[in-house]
Amino acid sequence: MMRVEVHKFALGAPDDLSALRAALDAGTVRAEQIVALIGKLEGDGFARRLAAGATARLLAPYLDCTPEEAERRFPMVWSVGADGVISPHVTIFTRDDAVAGDGQTRRLVLGTAFAEPILPEEIGRIGQVRKMMVAIRAAMADAGLDDPRDLHFVQTKVPALTVAQIAAAQAAGRDLATSSPQQSGDLSTAAATFATALVAGELTEAQVTDAVIGRDADLYSSLASASSGAEIVRPQVLVFGMSTRGSGPFTIGHATMRDAIDAAGVRAALRSAGLDFGEQPRAAQLAQVVSVFAKASPDPRGTIRGRRHVMLDDSSFPAHRHIRAAVGAVIASVIGDTAVYVSSGSRHQGPPGGGTIAAIVRLGE
Amino acid sequence: MMRVEVHKFALGAPDDLSALRAALDAGTVRAEQIVALIGKLEGDGFARRLAAGATARLLAPYLDCTPEEAERRFPMVWSVGADGVISPHVTIFTRDDAVAGDGQTRRLVLGTAFAEPILPEEIGRIGQVRKMMVAIRAAMADAGLDDPRDLHFVQTKVPALTVAQIAAAQAAGRDLATSSPQQSGDLSTAAATFATALVAGELTEAQVTDAVIGRDADLYSSLASASSGAEIVRPQVLVFGMSTRGSGPFTIGHATMRDAIDAAGVRAALRSAGLDFGEQPRAAQLAQVVSVFAKASPDPRGTIRGRRHVMLDDSSFPAHRHIRAAVGAVIASVIGDTAVYVSSGSRHQGPPGGGTIAAIVRLGE
Amino acid sequence: MMRVEVHKFALGAPDDLSALRAALDAGTVRAEQIVALIGKLEGDGFARRLAAGATARLLAPYLDCTPEEAERRFPMVWSVGADGVISPHVTIFTRDDAVAGDGQTRRLVLGTAFAEPILPEEIGRIGQVRKMMVAIRAAMADAGLDDPRDLHFVQTKVPALTVAQIAAAQAAGRDLATSSPQQSGDLSTAAATFATALVAGELTEAQVTDAVIGRDADLYSSLASASSGAEIVRPQVLVFGMSTRGSGPFTIGHATMRDAIDAAGVRAALRSAGLDFGEQPRAAQLAQVVSVFAKASPDPRGTIRGRRHVMLDDSSFPAHRHIRAAVGAVIASVIGDTAVYVSSGSRHQGPPGGGTIAAIVRLGE
Amino acid sequence: MMRVEVHKFALGAPDDLSALRAALDAGTVRAEQIVALIGKLEGDGFARRLAAGATARLLAPYLDCTPEEAERRFPMVWSVGADGVISPHVTIFTRDDAVAGDGQTRRLVLGTAFAEPILPEEIGRIGQVRKMMVAIRAAMADAGLDDPRDLHFVQTKVPALTVAQIAAAQAAGRDLATSSPQQSGDLSTAAATFATALVAGELTEAQVTDAVIGRDADLYSSLASASSGAEIVRPQVLVFGMSTRGSGPFTIGHATMRDAIDAAGVRAALRSAGLDFGEQPRAAQLAQVVSVFAKASPDPRGTIRGRRHVMLDDSSFPAHRHIRAAVGAVIASVIGDTAVYVSSGSRHQGPPGGGTIAAIVRLGE
Repeated sequence: MMRVEVHKFALGAPDDLSALRAALDAGTVRAEQIVALIGKLEGDGFARRLAAGATARLLAPYLDCTPEEAERRFPMVWSVGADGVISPHVTIFTRDDAVAGDGQTRRLVLGTAFAEPILPEEIGRIGQVRKMMVAIRAAMADAGLDDPRDLHFVQTKVPALTVAQIAAAQAAGRDLATSSPQQSGDLSTAAATFATALVAGELTEAQVTDAVIGRDADLYSSLASASSGAEIVRPQVLVFGMSTRGSGPFTIGHATMRDAIDAAGVRAALRSAGLDFGEQPRAAQLAQVVSVFAKASPDPRGTIRGRRHVMLDDSSFPAHRHIRAAVGAVIASVIGDTAVYVSSGSRHQGPPGGGTIAAIVRLGE
Repeated sequence: MMRVEVHKFALGAPDDLSALRAALDAGTVRAEQIVALIGKLEGDGFARRLAAGATARLLAPYLDCTPEEAERRFPMVWSVGADGVISPHVTIFTRDDAVAGDGQTRRLVLGTAFAEPILPEEIGRIGQVRKMMVAIRAAMADAGLDDPRDLHFVQTKVPALTVAQIAAAQAAGRDLATSSPQQSGDLSTAAATFATALVAGELTEAQVTDAVIGRDADLYSSLASASSGAEIVRPQVLVFGMSTRGSGPFTIGHATMRDAIDAAGVRAALRSAGLDFGEQPRAAQLAQVVSVFAKASPDPRGTIRGRRHVMLDDSSFPAHRHIRAAVGAVIASVIGDTAVYVSSGSRHQGPPGGGTIAAIVRLGE
Repeated sequence: MMRVEVHKFALGAPDDLSALRAALDAGTVRAEQIVALIGKLEGDGFARRLAAGATARLLAPYLDCTPEEAERRFPMVWSVGADGVISPHVTIFTRDDAVAGDGQTRRLVLGTAFAEPILPEEIGRIGQVRKMMVAIRAAMADAGLDDPRDLHFVQTKVPALTVAQIAAAQAAGRDLATSSPQQSGDLSTAAATFATALVAGELTEAQVTDAVIGRDADLYSSLASASSGAEIVRPQVLVFGMSTRGSGPFTIGHATMRDAIDAAGVRAALRSAGLDFGEQPRAAQLAQVVSVFAKASPDPRGTIRGRRHVMLDDSSFPAHRHIRAAVGAVIASVIGDTAVYVSSGSRHQGPPGGGTIAAIVRLGE
Repeated sequence: MMRVEVHKFALGAPDDLSALRAALDAGTVRAEQIVALIGKLEGDGFARRLAAGATARLLAPYLDCTPEEAERRFPMVWSVGADGVISPHVTIFTRDDAVAGDGQTRRLVLGTAFAEPILPEEIGRIGQVRKMMVAIRAAMADAGLDDPRDLHFVQTKVPALTVAQIAAAQAAGRDLATSSPQQSGDLSTAAATFATALVAGELTEAQVTDAVIGRDADLYSSLASASSGAEIVRPQVLVFGMSTRGSGPFTIGHATMRDAIDAAGVRAALRSAGLDFGEQPRAAQLAQVVSVFAKASPDPRGTIRGRRHVMLDDSSFPAHRHIRAAVGAVIASVIGDTAVYVSSGSRHQGPPGGGTIAAIVRLGE
């Protein structure tokens, strides 16, 4: 029972939301209908704060609330790292619950939820998995989805621990899964991903134990995308699916990039979203592609199709920047658009060295 | 009147030439027939020296000469920057002049030459262009090519000036085109590229003046690839073409990547080398692809297909690493092989934001 | 006729101004008396915007104005690059014009001004120098300084041109000093520095021509510190001096670091500010040091005291990060405090390879 | 029963040993007397191989052996990372056992040893500690040192595991201390450092267990310096001490830098080596300083003297480069020479955030 609209705007800088402002002023986007955003930013971690603050301050007057309230109103997934050709942009999702689907045509639906706060000692463990499962199911309910087979993409944003938080927790006698801030984020996204896989029926409860979270790369979800941030208190969940309850021109599909150069995986995501083509999509079809979301990691085994890669050996350039630059360019070369969302750190989110990829297409009403 | 063979070897490190050593020992490569190499290395500039020295020491006993003599025996084009998915490798070219072509089938031929030393005040100017033209024509003669239309790829390696050389030249009252070491390399490759364009008939002498070298990006060659190095005294020239005088299974073709995500340009290069396919090459055809050589630069206008890129704005990582990671991944996604040669700095070597691309294919005898 | 106070606050992040907020709430800093700030931030260029916005939003309610008005109210010099041990912090300057000096004791005075907008074709040329001189003299008048010999530190913040601005200006037929955005910033700070040197009597008008701006490194000011930013429209000027019209416990002094390891230059700045010590300052004296401001650049000749440095040769990390890390640590090792302001890009601001250094000390009322 | 000589040579590049070559040709250094070297290089890890190979090829003809034999003849400690102002250089140690000390004056002595190969499952554990203790004692015997109180500096070079080695060991059912290549190097240097501390009597056997190696930063040695490398099979040990058996003009001393800006620690090392001065060394005394060797790490607690540092938070520039740039500049600012050896990764080699520092001085015969 919803009409979802998907708007992609170029960002002139992390705090340059002039394109969104114009859409708000023109009425093509209504602030009170925004339910989520996923954005890709240039710069470092501070760009995320700059973007989040600027968005909240832009929306506040339209929502008749304070910027602080606007910032907490809906999930904002801001990711930094516009590496290689990747062009900074944001995808804004609006939802109008007054418009019902026709009960026959499947269209994009979207639900969101916040999870319960994760305790430091739960991070990266079954405790976090359980809380995330509750939230993912709540987001599915919010989306009006009851069959996991209708899911196409589950984006989670989960907490990571800082040095200070780790020290405090350990001083309080809490047993943590890791004492490394970096690893706490990795384990946290791993737990969120296993929660997605369990809800989606990709894995069974018996397979998911503390011992495999963040470790057994052969266990993975094909529709999870997870990010972590030290600023996150309550994890955020966005679920995207297809339903006859959905209305509007947009569809979503997903596939798996089996490695960093898997252009066929990109095309498979486009087909999954409903574009029907032979070897290559037509120009008119590419014009229908709105947003692509992908996860990526350097293959931990050190090779791609038998060839050695050096991303993990490079002491001067972080591996996550190498892989984003590579995968972003591959996707852009298929869809002809460099405004693609690629997030690094894909452990369990697709096979080792590969990653989840989802595509939203304006297929028509 | 030559049979050219093309061997691509993986490198375990800049000085790990064990694959070449095995081929020498097995007799599949004969050291005295090696006429050139083009290699892509991980690491920084010192990796080039490591590779060059290791190659010379490996070959010296096979050639019954000193390593120093081996290092000067034929052009070695070593390029650093295995960014993104690019896998370190080297392509070795051998030539047997005792084997003639059949006079009917066009196959890869290859010629080399060294240019006269370029004076500091000639770098980036017509003086350098003229000396490079002489050497390119000498390399064509060496290849048995007399028609510029048979050219497909011209690789040059030219000098750049160091801070010390610039200071010395200026102290001696010489008027240099630039006082920046970085810019001297850029101007030097620009001059080498204009020399290629003039020999190939892509530009006319009237178009090429001191004022446009390194500046007018709308003037470009479609088959030039140029690199500079402060260690170069005598510029090196490699010309690759197709001729009925050539023998062996290898062909070469070239095309232009019009921008960094131009997968169609990659496919055009494969077709130009003789692979006949519709929208996508077949797996069996990809197995015939041996080596791909491409030049690339961030689009100086700051956009790719209308979308802003941030490669030139990133203060934390060099733009040339971003672009190599992107273009290398695009090419690898088309040919299914990450051992591709991508060199940054493509001013005049293709249109702005794009670059020359050449492909060598084992088409069959 | 002023009492100047100088407050240094640690920053927990570019937008974490909690220490300043506490001081405002406690009344130790009065918002309406703030006349300038100079801050050192971690992160990249976006951290500057984050800090500026956060400061403006923090101050706005205290000033009963909008954040936009607060942001334009006084010069904010935010500089990124907390390299090496440098600790992010901000120095806030307040001024109470109702308190007069005693007419005998020389104390810190401070004046500010905004210059006329600099036209693109004026940047890096005499046109900019003249406009900056007018503003520097206005800031001196604001400080109540009439004798250039009482000047100790002149901080300017001037415009740099973006790619887009350069293209637009050239399309409009304007003759620019450079077509490189990076170089436009360098030339702009050079012009501001020559303006300082002329006002201070360090150079004569005959010495300063278009040809030497940004080029003749032997011409320099000993009390200039200049930065550029593409966001600057009206250049900002802060002048610091000593005067019997000044009141309060603070003094300022300046000296020159003749190279990057010149700890004696740091001590000379402390002595210039009024600390009286033999070879080393005492702990009690170091406790009086409030803020140190320094400029630094890798020596363009490639050596430091006869030893080769490799900052300019390093392709993996920017030279300005190397030099800030080095000079920041040297200063911190002398004063025992890592919250020091070091800004790179010191052309004309001290001798080649060295830089201006100023120190503010709480000498006592 | 030895005369040790210490020669510091500038390096024009990792493979530019022209200064050493000149000394060999002049006879001031005799190749057969070289017993060790410690060098600091620009560039990345490949620079180490370039330097080691170039040194071996330079020495081979003087030693009448092959380069391979020359490379294994004595410990070569090559370290990359000439960050900040650090100038690439090498310190060469020669030893003439035919010259005896006078039995009264204490002078520098030096001994070397190779340890038994460390098994993968021993790395970072007591097994490695024991093998290193044997080797350190052997090196002491070689130096003619029997009292640990005469030790001043113990440099070890120990193995790290590669991804491939870890995978192979785990496949063979071996229980490793870590499955991270990076951490294997850290644990390996930690074990070598504990071995030093045990031999030197700084720690007791009861204090050193598997559980504390690499973990309890409060346990440390004041004279250990350890590095790791994947290329190391047999660990190398160099011990430096003072003995009346030593002859020649050189002395050594050591101290501790308690944090990254501890210039007093640098001066303490100079005093320990025999320079007698008040607050600051005199210029004539600085001229006697030959080489300084220091270890450094960003303080793991995130602060320096109460001020936050951001080295560990910076995603764009590795923390070890920040700290080397900072500490190298502090040392250089004290001794007036940028050719200093600073190695990062000082866990257990000095207190947290600080590090071991040793100085060799030409005190006179």
